[in-house]
Amino acid sequence: MRIKLINPNTTDSMTESCVHGARPYVRPGTELYGVCPQTGPASIECYYEDYLCVPGLLAEIRRGEIEGADAYVVACFGDPGLLAAREATDKPVVGIAEAAIITARLLATSFSIVTILHRARHLVEAVVRQNGAQGWCRSIRTTDMGVLDFERDPQRGLAILADECRRAVRDDRAEAVILGCAGFTQFAHDLRGELGVPVIDGVVPAVKLAEALVDMGCKTSKVWTLSPPPAKEIKGFPALQQVPVP
Amino acid sequence: MRIKLINPNTTDSMTESCVHGARPYVRPGTELYGVCPQTGPASIECYYEDYLCVPGLLAEIRRGEIEGADAYVVACFGDPGLLAAREATDKPVVGIAEAAIITARLLATSFSIVTILHRARHLVEAVVRQNGAQGWCRSIRTTDMGVLDFERDPQRGLAILADECRRAVRDDRAEAVILGCAGFTQFAHDLRGELGVPVIDGVVPAVKLAEALVDMGCKTSKVWTLSPPPAKEIKGFPALQQVPVP
Amino acid sequence: MRIKLINPNTTDSMTESCVHGARPYVRPGTELYGVCPQTGPASIECYYEDYLCVPGLLAEIRRGEIEGADAYVVACFGDPGLLAAREATDKPVVGIAEAAIITARLLATSFSIVTILHRARHLVEAVVRQNGAQGWCRSIRTTDMGVLDFERDPQRGLAILADECRRAVRDDRAEAVILGCAGFTQFAHDLRGELGVPVIDGVVPAVKLAEALVDMGCKTSKVWTLSPPPAKEIKGFPALQQVPVP
Amino acid sequence: MRIKLINPNTTDSMTESCVHGARPYVRPGTELYGVCPQTGPASIECYYEDYLCVPGLLAEIRRGEIEGADAYVVACFGDPGLLAAREATDKPVVGIAEAAIITARLLATSFSIVTILHRARHLVEAVVRQNGAQGWCRSIRTTDMGVLDFERDPQRGLAILADECRRAVRDDRAEAVILGCAGFTQFAHDLRGELGVPVIDGVVPAVKLAEALVDMGCKTSKVWTLSPPPAKEIKGFPALQQVPVP
Amino acid sequence: MRIKLINPNTTDSMTESCVHGARPYVRPGTELYGVCPQTGPASIECYYEDYLCVPGLLAEIRRGEIEGADAYVVACFGDPGLLAAREATDKPVVGIAEAAIITARLLATSFSIVTILHRARHLVEAVVRQNGAQGWCRSIRTTDMGVLDFERDPQRGLAILADECRRAVRDDRAEAVILGCAGFTQFAHDLRGELGVPVIDGVVPAVKLAEALVDMGCKTSKVWTLSPPPAKEIKGFPALQQVPVP
Amino acid sequence: MRIKLINPNTTDSMTESCVHGARPYVRPGTELYGVCPQTGPASIECYYEDYLCVPGLLAEIRRGEIEGADAYVVACFGDPGLLAAREATDKPVVGIAEAAIITARLLATSFSIVTILHRARHLVEAVVRQNGAQGWCRSIRTTDMGVLDFERDPQRGLAILADECRRAVRDDRAEAVILGCAGFTQFAHDLRGELGVPVIDGVVPAVKLAEALVDMGCKTSKVWTLSPPPAKEIKGFPALQQVPVP
Repeated sequence: MRIKLINPNTTDSMTESCVHGARPYVRPGTELYGVCPQTGPASIECYYEDYLCVPGLLAEIRRGEIEGADAYVVACFGDPGLLAAREATDKPVVGIAEAAIITARLLATSFSIVTILHRARHLVEAVVRQNGAQGWCRSIRTTDMGVLDFERDPQRGLAILADECRRAVRDDRAEAVILGCAGFTQFAHDLRGELGVPVIDGVVPAVKLAEALVDMGCKTSKVWTLSPPPAKEIKGFPALQQVPVP
Repeated sequence: MRIKLINPNTTDSMTESCVHGARPYVRPGTELYGVCPQTGPASIECYYEDYLCVPGLLAEIRRGEIEGADAYVVACFGDPGLLAAREATDKPVVGIAEAAIITARLLATSFSIVTILHRARHLVEAVVRQNGAQGWCRSIRTTDMGVLDFERDPQRGLAILADECRRAVRDDRAEAVILGCAGFTQFAHDLRGELGVPVIDGVVPAVKLAEALVDMGCKTSKVWTLSPPPAKEIKGFPALQQVPVP
Repeated sequence: MRIKLINPNTTDSMTESCVHGARPYVRPGTELYGVCPQTGPASIECYYEDYLCVPGLLAEIRRGEIEGADAYVVACFGDPGLLAAREATDKPVVGIAEAAIITARLLATSFSIVTILHRARHLVEAVVRQNGAQGWCRSIRTTDMGVLDFERDPQRGLAILADECRRAVRDDRAEAVILGCAGFTQFAHDLRGELGVPVIDGVVPAVKLAEALVDMGCKTSKVWTLSPPPAKEIKGFPALQQVPVP
Repeated sequence: MRIKLINPNTTDSMTESCVHGARPYVRPGTELYGVCPQTGPASIECYYEDYLCVPGLLAEIRRGEIEGADAYVVACFGDPGLLAAREATDKPVVGIAEAAIITARLLATSFSIVTILHRARHLVEAVVRQNGAQGWCRSIRTTDMGVLDFERDPQRGLAILADECRRAVRDDRAEAVILGCAGFTQFAHDLRGELGVPVIDGVVPAVKLAEALVDMGCKTSKVWTLSPPPAKEIKGFPALQQVPVP
Repeated sequence: MRIKLINPNTTDSMTESCVHGARPYVRPGTELYGVCPQTGPASIECYYEDYLCVPGLLAEIRRGEIEGADAYVVACFGDPGLLAAREATDKPVVGIAEAAIITARLLATSFSIVTILHRARHLVEAVVRQNGAQGWCRSIRTTDMGVLDFERDPQRGLAILADECRRAVRDDRAEAVILGCAGFTQFAHDLRGELGVPVIDGVVPAVKLAEALVDMGCKTSKVWTLSPPPAKEIKGFPALQQVPVP
Repeated sequence: MRIKLINPNTTDSMTESCVHGARPYVRPGTELYGVCPQTGPASIECYYEDYLCVPGLLAEIRRGEIEGADAYVVACFGDPGLLAAREATDKPVVGIAEAAIITARLLATSFSIVTILHRARHLVEAVVRQNGAQGWCRSIRTTDMGVLDFERDPQRGLAILADECRRAVRDDRAEAVILGCAGFTQFAHDLRGELGVPVIDGVVPAVKLAEALVDMGCKTSKVWTLSPPPAKEIKGFPALQQVPVP
C-alpha cells in the first residue's frame, strides 16, 4: 500500500524529518512518501497560516489520487483542512493531532499537550474539542519558540520542550504527554527516556492508523457531509485545478 | 465610517443582494460597500469550498486596510476564516452567522436555523458550537436546494424555505428562526409577515454590530491568539501578497 | 428613538454614572435616559438582592411602555430579571452582562471578568453559563470591595481593579477583560490606557445593542416562553400594578 | 422538629393540598406546616411570576426564623428564589424540583418531567440544568393546562396528565416520571397505579429531605456565596422588612 | 425498617466504624446493620479492586432480600456496582458518594472532595461526572495515604486530612468539603469543629436517604435498564449463586 | 506478535466467531488467539453481568502475561473492566466499543450504534460518553433481541439488524453505523453491501489498533491511575489469584 504524508507547510526538511521518523514503524509492503504543497506558508502557527496551507494540501490530495495513494496523513498538529480533505477523496485521511489524541487515550486516562508559541494555544484547544477530548486534557503548555526555531536550534528546543513536559507530569499530573507539533517527532525518542510516561508524537500514530484503515478496507463515508464537493466554477488555485477530478 | 462587506464566494449578484438588503438599515454617515474575492468558489456549500474561499477573503481584508475600511462583515453563514481575518486586521470583523445567533438570543430563548443542502448541516452545527449556542438551538433544518438554486428560482426557494420555517416553529417549537444562508436575506421580509416569530437574517445584524463596534472605538485584541501573523515566506496567493502589509 | 436604562438598584449616582458614560456613544436622534426603581436594595451583591430588585425593575419596564421607550437596558452585571423583563414588553431588553460578553467574543478568543466581592462570584458564573460562554472565560476575579465602596473611594477602587485586571492578562492569559459591575463604567477609560487588551464595560455595549435592535425593527419573540404574563391576581407590588398593562 | 412548607403562590388551597399530601409521610415528632406569602401571584407559570413570588417567600423565611422553623420547603416546581432563601437563613431549604430530581436519580437511570403550559417548559429546562441533570432527562412534556385549571377541573387534569405520562414512558422511554407542578401532588397516587414506573412528586421528597437534613444537624454553608445578605438600605417590601433579622 | 449497609471491602473494622458513625442518626424503628462481603479486596483504591468487590457486594444484596432488608447502602466512595445492585433488587440502593454529593449541593453552591491516594483521583472524578456535579466541584484533593493507613494511624491521618480540607477552603474556595472515603466517617466530627464550612461524610447521608426512600415507599424502576438481570447460566461466584433469586 | 482476544462472556462460539472474523485482517507475523474466561455469564446484557464478567477477564489478562501476549482485546461492546485491565498489565488493552468509535470518527462526521435489547441502551450511552463521542452519536437503536438470540437465529437477527441500520441512516441521518455487539461481527459483510455507509464492527478495529500499538512499542502509562494494583489481601477469585503476578 502507498501512504502519502502531506506536510502542509512548505519546509521540505520538516517533511523529511516526519517521513524519516515514521518509516521504521511501517510494515513491509507499505510505501510511505512525503510531500510539501506548492503553495502555503513556511510554517503554520496561526489561523491565517492554517487556512493558507489548505489549498495546497487539497491539491496534493487530488494529485495523490492519480499517484495511486491508498491513504493520506496530514502532518501538522492543527489538523488543517481535515474535513475538506475527506471530501476530496474516499481514501482514509488521518490528522496527526487526532492520531496523537487517540493514542494517548488508549494508553492513559489523561494527557497534556506541549506545543510551540503561546499564540497557537487556541488552535490546539480547538483540536482537543474537535476530538471530544476536553475531559482527558490536563493542560496545554507552550514553549514560546516558533516551529522553525526548533529546526534551527534543536538542542535548545529539546531542552525547553523537556522542561515543559516535566512540568506537565509533575505539576498538572498528566499521565501521558503529546508532542504538539509535527516538528517534534525528532525529539520523541530522547524525551521517552526520561519522562516515565508515554510520550506521543502524532506522526507515527497517524501513519499506523492509516495503514490499519487500509488493511481493513475502510473508506470515508460518502453520504451527505463528506460527499465529493459539488461540481462548480472555482476561480484561482491553478495548482489545485490542474489535477483532473478522479 | 466605511464598512466593507465581503461575500466570500465569487457570485456578484449575491454581494449585491446582501448590500441591497442591509443598506436601508445603516445610519447616515455609514458607507457600506460590498465585494467578492478574486479567487474562490461560486458558492460555499461544503468544507472544501469553505477553505478555498478564505485566501481571497483575506486578500480583501488586506485591501480593505488600504481602502480605509473601519470594519468588515464576512457574509457567508459558515463564518469562514473568521479568526484568520481577525488576525489580519485590528478593525472589527463580524460574521453573519455569529451576528444572527447573537440577535436570536437577544430576542428569544430558542431558535432554529433553516439552511441549504443537507450536506451543509454539519458546517452549521459547527458554527452553533463555536458560538456556544447549542442550548438555544432547537433544530437545524435543510431545504435540499443549493445556494445558487435560490438565486435561479427564488419563488420556489421561498416556498420551500417558508415550509421548513413553519415546521421549525410548529414541530420544533423554535421561538425564532435564523435564515442560514447569505442568499436568504432577500426572503426575510416575506417570511416575517407570516411566521409570527422573529425571522433573523445575519447580514443586517452583522452590519449593525460592525457599526456599533466602530462607534464604540473597539479594536480586536492583539495579544497572543489574534495578533498579526508572523512575518514569513508564503508561496503562492499573488492576490493576497500583492497588497502591502499595512 | 428612546432608550430607557434601568439601574435596578436604588442608588441614583450609579444611574447617573451609567448614563453619563454611555451618552457620548449614542448617535444623534437617540435619547438615552436612566432611572432607579422605587423599590429594592441600594446595591446588588447577592441572590437575595438580585431578587428584591426585580419587582421595581419590572415596574420601570411597564412605566416605560407608557413613556414610549423603544428599548431597555438593565444595568446590573447579574442581568437580574432579564427574561421576566422580556415577558413584560415586546421592545428589546438588553442586559449589560450579556452585552459585555457578546462584545468580548467579537473582539477576542477569551476573556476574564473582574468583579466585586468574592460572594458575587457564583452570580457571575451563572451569567457566564446563561450566555453559553464557559469556553471563553479564563477566570472570574474578585476585588473584595462592595459596589458602593467603589462609589465612595474610586481611587482605591481603580487601583485594586487595575491590579486584578493585570493579573487576568498576565496570569490567566485573558485576551480581553470584562468589567463585572455597572459601577465600573467610570474606570473603563483609565484601564484601557494601560492594559493592552480590550477592556469591556457592559453599559455602553448594551446601549449600542439596544440601539441597533431598534434600528432593525426587532421585537422580542412572543410565542410561548416570552409571551406576556397571563392575566391573574397578584397581591402586593402597588408600584408595579398601578401602571396599566399596555 | 418544625418544617415550614412555603407554597410561593398565594392560592391557599394549593398549600393545603401540599401539606395534606406530605403529612402522612413525616415521622412522629415532625411538625409540618404550610403557608402562602402575603404578596405574589395566584399561580406561577412564567419568569415574571417566578420573580414576583420571591419577596413574599423571603418574608416567610424570615418569619420562620422567629417561629422556630428547623427547615424550609419551597413548594413550586421552578424552585424560585432558592439561593436567595439559603442566604436568608442557615436552616436547610429544599426545593421541590431539586428534591424530585434527586429522588428520580436514586430510583432510575432516566426520567421525564410532565408539567403545565408549554410556556413553562423553558423554566423547567433551567431547573434541570441547575441540577446538573440534563443527561438523565429524556423529555419535558407539557399539558397545555394552567396551574389553576388543574385545581378547577382535577378530573380532566388527571386524564390529560396521565396521557402525557404514558407517552413519556412509551415514546421517550423514561424510566421514571416527575410531576412538574406542586399542584400535581394530588394525582401521584392514581398515576402510580397504572404507569409501571416510579411517579415522583416533589413535595413529599422535599419534606423528607428537609427532615433528614435536620436529623443530621446540617446547616447551609455560610462562607461567601450563601452568607447572610449584607446589611444595607432596601426600599419597599414592608412585609419583608417588618420581620427583625434574627 | 431494616437498612443493610454493605462495606464492599473485606475489612470488618471499617464496617463497624461506618455503622457506629451512622447509628446515632437513624430514627427509632430503623435497624441498621453492616456487613463485609465474603470475597473481595481488603480496601478499594483502584479500578481493579473496584471491580473485584462487586460480586461479593451483589451476593450481599441477594442475601439481604432473604434477610428482609428494606434498603441498602453501598459504603465505598467509588459507589462500586451501584447500577448492578439496583438491578438485583427493587429496594432502594444508595451509594455514599452520591449521598455526599446530594447533601453538599443542598447546603452549598460548591464543594471539594478530599480523598486518599492520588491514583484514586480518576475514580473520584468519574463519580462526580456520574452525578452530573462537575459544575459544583471546585477540586479533588488527595492525601497520599491509603485507606488502611488511616485505620492504622488515625491521628496522622486526621492531621493530613485536615490540612487538605483547609487548602480546599482557602485556596480553592470550596464552600463545603466532602470526605471522599468511607473510612473518613470517624474524622467528620473533629473536622467540623474547625473548618467553618459543612463537612460531609457520605455514610450518614446515605443511611438517611435510604430511610427517607423507604418511608416514602419508593422502589427502583423496573422497566428496561434496571429490570432484573435475565435468567441465564453464570459460571463461578458460588457465594452469589447459592442465594436463591427472590 | 501475539494478540489475545478475550471475549468476556463464557460462550465459546462467540469467541470463535470474533477470532474467525478478525483473523483475515491481521498481518503475517501476528498471532491472534481467543479465549473465554472460566467464570462469568453466558452473555452480557446488563450492569450485573457487566461486573460479573470482569474477575474472569482480569484472570485472563494475568494468564496472558505468562503466555507472552503482547496486547489484549476486550471483545464485548460495553468495554467491561477496561481500566481495571489496563492496571493489570502494561501491554496495550483495547476495547471493541472504543475501537469502533475511533474508527467511525476517522471515516465519518456522525454515527449511530445499533445494539441488542433496549435494556442495554444505557450501557451503550455510557460507553459513548466515556469516549467523549456524544457529539458524533446520532442515535442508539435497539433490536429487542438478546445476544444469544442472534447466535441461535442469525438469519432473523440479520434481518432485524439490517432494518434498524437502514433507519439509522434514513431517519437519523447517521453517516456511519456501528454494530454494537461482539456477536454482530458475522453480519458486517452483508450489511456493508447494502447500506451505502461505513458499517463498523469493533472487533477487527480493536485487533488492528492493538497491532499498531505493539508495532509502535507503546505501553500503558504506569504513573498514578493505571499503575499496578497495590499488593494486598484479596479474598476469593481463585482463578485470578492462582496466576502469579508477573
